[in-house]
Amino acid sequence: MSESPPSASFAQIGDVLRHHQSFVLLSHVRPDGDAIGSQIGLGFALLAAGKSVRLFNEDGLPDNLAFLRGSERIERPPADPVDADVVIALDTATRPRLGAACLHAVSGVKLWLNIDHHISNPHYADLNLIHATSPATGQILYELILALGLPLPDESRDALYVAVSTDTGSFQYPSTTAKTYDMAADLIRRGLDVGTLNSNTYDNHPYRRLELLRALLNTLERSPDGLLAHWTLRESVRHDLALCAADSEGLIDVIRGIRGVQVAVFFEELPDGTSRVSMRSKDRRYDVCQIATQFGGGGHSLAAGIRMHEPLDAAKARVLAAIQQRIVEVSGDLQTAGKRN
Amino acid sequence: MSESPPSASFAQIGDVLRHHQSFVLLSHVRPDGDAIGSQIGLGFALLAAGKSVRLFNEDGLPDNLAFLRGSERIERPPADPVDADVVIALDTATRPRLGAACLHAVSGVKLWLNIDHHISNPHYADLNLIHATSPATGQILYELILALGLPLPDESRDALYVAVSTDTGSFQYPSTTAKTYDMAADLIRRGLDVGTLNSNTYDNHPYRRLELLRALLNTLERSPDGLLAHWTLRESVRHDLALCAADSEGLIDVIRGIRGVQVAVFFEELPDGTSRVSMRSKDRRYDVCQIATQFGGGGHSLAAGIRMHEPLDAAKARVLAAIQQRIVEVSGDLQTAGKRN
Repeated sequence: MSESPPSASFAQIGDVLRHHQSFVLLSHVRPDGDAIGSQIGLGFALLAAGKSVRLFNEDGLPDNLAFLRGSERIERPPADPVDADVVIALDTATRPRLGAACLHAVSGVKLWLNIDHHISNPHYADLNLIHATSPATGQILYELILALGLPLPDESRDALYVAVSTDTGSFQYPSTTAKTYDMAADLIRRGLDVGTLNSNTYDNHPYRRLELLRALLNTLERSPDGLLAHWTLRESVRHDLALCAADSEGLIDVIRGIRGVQVAVFFEELPDGTSRVSMRSKDRRYDVCQIATQFGGGGHSLAAGIRMHEPLDAAKARVLAAIQQRIVEVSGDLQTAGKRN
Repeated sequence: MSESPPSASFAQIGDVLRHHQSFVLLSHVRPDGDAIGSQIGLGFALLAAGKSVRLFNEDGLPDNLAFLRGSERIERPPADPVDADVVIALDTATRPRLGAACLHAVSGVKLWLNIDHHISNPHYADLNLIHATSPATGQILYELILALGLPLPDESRDALYVAVSTDTGSFQYPSTTAKTYDMAADLIRRGLDVGTLNSNTYDNHPYRRLELLRALLNTLERSPDGLLAHWTLRESVRHDLALCAADSEGLIDVIRGIRGVQVAVFFEELPDGTSRVSMRSKDRRYDVCQIATQFGGGGHSLAAGIRMHEPLDAAKARVLAAIQQRIVEVSGDLQTAGKRN
């Protein structure tokens, strides 16, 4: 594998921000806390510095993040291309994940920045600030804002906290660093209300999410060795419960949390008869990104996904077989290693 | 209300630790992460300082905390009183909550310390270090250990992190302070493996916990106004799933997390035909401690419980009526306030 190209420096990014006046900030489709939090976080810092800023997202603002102050500035992209000096893509591993309508809306803008923490990011902009060891794009932006001496208004403070909290599973994932905790401590000292913000983030699910959880638990299956567990969402359930995209967010952690389970899988039937597969692993030997790439998907070794152009039952059979195959290989490796010792 | 007596200083506690050689550390019955984490945390710091230390808990070490290094030192109290210079009660709001067998085992020890973060703690020892603004006893102990220059071995480092993480709902509750995050950052810099430790703490539930969750979701009910939600555990389910006490720990947060729900209630049928009620509130106006005291229970305004000597259905009807009554009162207050404005 070739080495990744060098990341831009904070100073280079700072030069672009200083020498331009109008910015469009984008994030990925089906936006999560780090996507929206990064847009509000950097957006309000630039607004407070006197810049003109627009925040576009292909799918608009999800309900579950509407509590964030400043989130009313998140708009769906306008139909016609806009005038601006700079586009900043945030938390978006590939250009197409910004969405076709967003790409059209910024098609007239010449200069592109790309700020992200996904190691697979192919550096698709003019300047690319990619910190793959950062647990969240929100943490890169916090460091950038402080390093450049940009203002940190309350909207940015709260949004960057939520970005980092949601992308680390509330400061739990292995990606969490000492600096992540330092950042949270500093944001509290800047007046952040940790109880209210977390309550809005984590204790604010629509009732139908629990109905969904009940439906999913009724489909839960576990392999005889206990290493693999999965559940399935049928389109009929999505329809009956009038589900939104955000309703299932993070639910896969419920099965990942079972003792002994190394690979957790969420199978979804989509309205057009195709399928989506989300996978989580607890152990890098069961590299779910490697499984996903066999079917044209991608992600990280511990969290990956696939869009499959085939009906659910066929997709499910093929993916489960690939995972079982990997489990057999790992157990073979273990036996060989055992004999060697 | 009378003012609480003054807390002992770190220096006073330090004098006792320095001038004595043998210690018994206790924590409360049905121990949680802060109880066990505090015992291991302070225990291994004292061991590393060359002291003789025993760690007793009335109910022994719960399965879900057995991953903690050093947890093998947690013992049930011996039948006969032990010889030691000092007893240290940790994270235990009242003396009886240490358990009768533990109290008997230390009945020959003269000098008592009491280190806790519960505001209701009646200072039942000779020296009482009570920091009610600390989110966890583990955080007080971390500050004490650093202030006194005691060693902080790996067992203590990990145990104090788990104590604080579990007592703040993973750094989310309003009690979480900037110092809580500072502490976590420092412990990571001292070599703590944040991913593994959190995975062991939060992603390590026995499969039967999900079966329990499914059974509970199938009993979930919500009041028409959406303010109250509750579910019920029948003794037959506990028996069929072979549940342990720890299996249901924290599950009430699943219903507390519903948007609009202000009061969440967990009703449990006990083996002897009596009932246990756990309540959570999101709003101090719905003071669940006030509800609990009507039935001989207690707790905090946002988290309270009751042991009721009557069958489940009767207990349930009476408690739900009391909560509904309170909801009517609050909505009356709101209407009156509305008219006044």
